[in-house]
Amino acid sequence: MNQTELLHVNFPHLRDLKPFDTAHSATPWLADSDAKHSRKLCASIEEAVKRSGLRDGMTISFHHAFREGDRVINTVVALLARMGFKNLTLASSSLMTCNDALIEHIKSGVITRIYTSGMRGRLADAISHGLMDEPVQIHSHGGRVKLLQDGELNIDVAFLGVPCSDEFGNANGTHGKSCCGSLGYAMVDAHFARKVVLLTEALVPFPNMPASLVQDQVDYIVQVESVGDPAKISVGAARVTSNPRELMIARYAADVIEHSGYFRPGFSMQTGSGAAATACTRFMEEKMERSGVKARFALGGITGSLVDLHEKGLIEKLLDTQCFDGQAAASLARNPNHVEISTNVYANPGSKAASCDQLDVVILSALEIDVDFNVNVITGSDGVMRGASGGHCDVAAAANLTIVVAPLLRSRIPTVVKRVTTRLTPGESIDVLVTDHGIAVNPARPEVRERLMAAGLKVVDINALYERAISLTGVPKPIEFTDKIVGVIRYRDGSVIDTVRQVKEEI
Amino acid sequence: MNQTELLHVNFPHLRDLKPFDTAHSATPWLADSDAKHSRKLCASIEEAVKRSGLRDGMTISFHHAFREGDRVINTVVALLARMGFKNLTLASSSLMTCNDALIEHIKSGVITRIYTSGMRGRLADAISHGLMDEPVQIHSHGGRVKLLQDGELNIDVAFLGVPCSDEFGNANGTHGKSCCGSLGYAMVDAHFARKVVLLTEALVPFPNMPASLVQDQVDYIVQVESVGDPAKISVGAARVTSNPRELMIARYAADVIEHSGYFRPGFSMQTGSGAAATACTRFMEEKMERSGVKARFALGGITGSLVDLHEKGLIEKLLDTQCFDGQAAASLARNPNHVEISTNVYANPGSKAASCDQLDVVILSALEIDVDFNVNVITGSDGVMRGASGGHCDVAAAANLTIVVAPLLRSRIPTVVKRVTTRLTPGESIDVLVTDHGIAVNPARPEVRERLMAAGLKVVDINALYERAISLTGVPKPIEFTDKIVGVIRYRDGSVIDTVRQVKEEI
Repeated sequence: MNQTELLHVNFPHLRDLKPFDTAHSATPWLADSDAKHSRKLCASIEEAVKRSGLRDGMTISFHHAFREGDRVINTVVALLARMGFKNLTLASSSLMTCNDALIEHIKSGVITRIYTSGMRGRLADAISHGLMDEPVQIHSHGGRVKLLQDGELNIDVAFLGVPCSDEFGNANGTHGKSCCGSLGYAMVDAHFARKVVLLTEALVPFPNMPASLVQDQVDYIVQVESVGDPAKISVGAARVTSNPRELMIARYAADVIEHSGYFRPGFSMQTGSGAAATACTRFMEEKMERSGVKARFALGGITGSLVDLHEKGLIEKLLDTQCFDGQAAASLARNPNHVEISTNVYANPGSKAASCDQLDVVILSALEIDVDFNVNVITGSDGVMRGASGGHCDVAAAANLTIVVAPLLRSRIPTVVKRVTTRLTPGESIDVLVTDHGIAVNPARPEVRERLMAAGLKVVDINALYERAISLTGVPKPIEFTDKIVGVIRYRDGSVIDTVRQVKEEI
Repeated sequence: MNQTELLHVNFPHLRDLKPFDTAHSATPWLADSDAKHSRKLCASIEEAVKRSGLRDGMTISFHHAFREGDRVINTVVALLARMGFKNLTLASSSLMTCNDALIEHIKSGVITRIYTSGMRGRLADAISHGLMDEPVQIHSHGGRVKLLQDGELNIDVAFLGVPCSDEFGNANGTHGKSCCGSLGYAMVDAHFARKVVLLTEALVPFPNMPASLVQDQVDYIVQVESVGDPAKISVGAARVTSNPRELMIARYAADVIEHSGYFRPGFSMQTGSGAAATACTRFMEEKMERSGVKARFALGGITGSLVDLHEKGLIEKLLDTQCFDGQAAASLARNPNHVEISTNVYANPGSKAASCDQLDVVILSALEIDVDFNVNVITGSDGVMRGASGGHCDVAAAANLTIVVAPLLRSRIPTVVKRVTTRLTPGESIDVLVTDHGIAVNPARPEVRERLMAAGLKVVDINALYERAISLTGVPKPIEFTDKIVGVIRYRDGSVIDTVRQVKEEI
């Protein structure tokens, strides 16, 4: 009787233990000096797809760190179409105007379900007009991780674009030609996906460490010409504004922060991706310099203006789930206290801890906000989807003070409305609305209202803002919808907070 | 019909989707400004144990980064004994001489099963003499992660000592009073354990980032007086030697590396924890300086001598799964290219990639090596356990050149033997044996043998070394064992490569 047999006889509960065979039984590549180095490398995306085991009906995922500059999503889906795949679920962390090309692959049945934070452009328009049989699931950034964690969303193959990786899959977004900066979205896909395919522009020597996506998460690696154009990261939602009205609102928002009771040494803030929200950062600098109040951290999407404050010593740490511009990406590569975090660490309500829970103040934008402070960031005044859930409801729920900034009117259409077309963030999470016509405070926060009034800020009732808006524009004609549900708005905990119906064709 | 009901009617497969309730339904702590910050904090280890849900029969884990200075394992197990727990599985990444106190808790039935890389001192002696009913499972560092991954080992509660953490559980081993440096072992427990309890000396402000153990892995946090004495990390196996024979062997080993064919620009190396192995690093420095050959990385347990080479520009990166001394821990805090890696990234054969697969040269130690190059690093010449599997079989299997260093005799007992008492690493993984009486090359590597002979090194047949040993000491008397299996030696892939039987009491 050999050793293992003796063990099984004496300890029957250990009978699953197998005897040793050879040193390389479980690791055959170690007996092959080429395979040792090349076993993950694929000559083409097609080879990676084949090796990944992708089949019809499965779920594929992407990150959107390159935003409008992304070149991975369209490329891979077009390839999957050519390869004959059907009935796939597309689970991109978000979709942009640049993803118009997906329309044809939805029409042809390559993509039949979508999970995303948002949509814009022709794709969003087509979906709003009934392109898909199945409604799109719109989730927040934190809520996406909750869906993955809870098992509703199961990524079979994640296709993750990066500027550089080594042959084992150690990758980051801060070194190489096309740097997107933080890979906060991709980190989650790398963690949860059954198979992870890296598309990398540069293949660099091992060990490419420290790494954002780590070798023990990566299955296949393909070198490609281009994964994205970083110059287009700050196009669109993440743009920097010079619009005087947006700058005025940003200035008011900075005044609100200053007098809110939360502007104190060691405070923390997030300024979101809207133009006014981002601009607010610049006005904070002056207040921080003047008062000597320094922030412990800034969270979320990081901009060049936040990097400026960090490098001037006004913000101790930057917790970065997405770089909104090249300056932020360069800072992430350079500054040890500019820290990359996953969306699980950022905002998942089901995470063992979400950083947004530590947040004092957040500035968020809105397409519409109603007199109960409910916010719509997905549908336009015509009922067509053209935005993104983002981290909106995540940080709104968690921050000590949630400020929404918005112009009262956009192109002569009210932003402050009786009832939002689509609700993404519940009014209970919004504390202050800052518009170019005055500042409204949620009645649930009387102490904040008092502080702002004591500081001489122009505090008004939100109903007065609504009245003001319709006095300027008249009551807008209700949008006509069909009964068909084209979008399901998922709150961060996975519940359905609203649905989006198909807009009626204009005749 | 509300929105969600309409959705369910139209899309029956979405019927599990629940309607939105309130913003804080899934995150009640957000409605409580104290709970927001304190929900993980426990006033005592006892409170953390209670909240963790630990029950009789479950599995607890620890890391051994403080080695002989550890104060967490004994403290927690003693507390669990006082709390009345029974029948626990202890899955510490390793156990040391300092863990003698566990004997009484094994006797009283608190601990009934053990998984560990190794054992030393009175505890190992008692177990070798039949203390436990169930054999101890001895695994390698990489193999431990494989057992976790494969589900044989399920950690219910991990108790992880750290010098500093914030209130969310962002922790590292490099800042605070008692710095152990890399938390490479603990990172794996934090990933796999059902519940993670941090014992921290310092509670520092959020965000304590970048973090080694991350907030989304941590459940409970207890502030304690002391988690370990870093001065005792380099006691025992990780000590620095001044023994002339060990230094001679180290010098020979460096000569072997130089002439092995693997000493070329961009090579990589690991020097293990044995005294001679560690000393070899110092001799490498001179060769690297002279030849201009620089290493791309050093891997595994990192010592002050490797840090010296790194800071002199001779080793580009240090991939650190465990700091063997205070100099290494200080370097990890300071040097951006000194990178902390988990044991999954280090050496798990079931990982998507193990760094040891990239290794050119490794120096390992041995308690015994036999004429077929099989290595024993667990039992002494008396059959009693007094060592550790460590990363031995992991890196031996993976490296391009595996060198074992050992004196021919220890206290007049041969190290080179006919058949090892206990086999941990198979002979097929060992390429070269360096002793104070000559260098033996595995017949499977004739090209290495030729290179070393061409360089004028003293190459001998391993059988000649064995003959030489017994000519000096005589053939050792066989050790007498009972039939009772007290230890199961698991190869890195989980298979049983050997068992250890109870030694007969001396009369």
